[in-house]
Amino acid sequence: MKNRIITISREFGSGGRTIGKKVAQKLNIPCYDSELIQKIAQESGFTESYVQDTEECSPGGFLASAFSNRAFGKTNEDYLWEVQWKIITELAEKGPCVIVGRCADYILREKAACLTVFIHASVEYRANRIVQVYGQREESPEQRLRDKDKRRAAYHRFYTNMKWGYAQNYHVALDSGVLGIERCADIIAGLYETTQNQEA
Amino acid sequence: MKNRIITISREFGSGGRTIGKKVAQKLNIPCYDSELIQKIAQESGFTESYVQDTEECSPGGFLASAFSNRAFGKTNEDYLWEVQWKIITELAEKGPCVIVGRCADYILREKAACLTVFIHASVEYRANRIVQVYGQREESPEQRLRDKDKRRAAYHRFYTNMKWGYAQNYHVALDSGVLGIERCADIIAGLYETTQNQEA
Repeated sequence: MKNRIITISREFGSGGRTIGKKVAQKLNIPCYDSELIQKIAQESGFTESYVQDTEECSPGGFLASAFSNRAFGKTNEDYLWEVQWKIITELAEKGPCVIVGRCADYILREKAACLTVFIHASVEYRANRIVQVYGQREESPEQRLRDKDKRRAAYHRFYTNMKWGYAQNYHVALDSGVLGIERCADIIAGLYETTQNQEA
Repeated sequence: MKNRIITISREFGSGGRTIGKKVAQKLNIPCYDSELIQKIAQESGFTESYVQDTEECSPGGFLASAFSNRAFGKTNEDYLWEVQWKIITELAEKGPCVIVGRCADYILREKAACLTVFIHASVEYRANRIVQVYGQREESPEQRLRDKDKRRAAYHRFYTNMKWGYAQNYHVALDSGVLGIERCADIIAGLYETTQNQEA
């Protein structure tokens, strides 16, 4: 029988990672976030150098190489994608869990009974939140959001061929700015507990 | 103070109208659906003839006139849009309610404290459901869904300039096929009861 997994895709600054952790606590299952998966990839021995320049951490890195270097074979991102694919599949085989980011919804679409979630919020809400959580930077928070959003959307589209942020791709999509982080976590945990079959 | 309104946009066959009615029952507030608003428009005296050929009821009618007749002035749909705008605004001023369809989320965006909902489901689920609810037709259910989906998306985009089905446009988007109609109604009614401020 397939394990039941909650996958959380999220806009930068929307609190998706915090919601994932809260849901996991409520359900007493592990939560793997993007950073954790990246760390596991680094520790897997054969990928440390490949993990650089992914969409999450380097401005320009992913887009530049995704659209220009591919004629010369696999890019670092392609290798990282393969490693992530393997790690996420293994995590889902171990048991029920929450996975935040890294296209886990796409990777697990036939391998697990997923409850797929998308968390978003207005630019205003997210701009305030990233300054609170990550502090001020040279770039304006709005510019940082635009860059991150573009990068995540392009990354997601490139590897999954699915439209980022399109409601039909998720079982539940929530505006964390309006509904609040606690309420979002309650809804997701409640759905996990009460919905028997999450296979679309 | 602005009234609190639940607006439900939905894919054809997803059960959005049924969910709207259930939510309204749970909250003991009225539910106005697309057909009801259309009826009120017809009864308003000056619109009976204009109500024909809207996106909801005539194949080809809306798209054909939307993209070809506008050079000659307002189309029937433009008049209907104005009447709907007026009726939906008046309904929202009367008191809390659920409004299904007709771009109520857009029309009320600054006039009410809306909880905006989008209901969707897989083509397979919706194809089965429309045959159960509306019976067989000459066209396949899948073809009927494609036509309706296209028409609603074009109508919505034309009058609101917002992307149909884009998660960021709604406070909550739910897959009724996977989560179930009852559970969707519970979540929406629960959010209405527990969220104080639904203004984005």
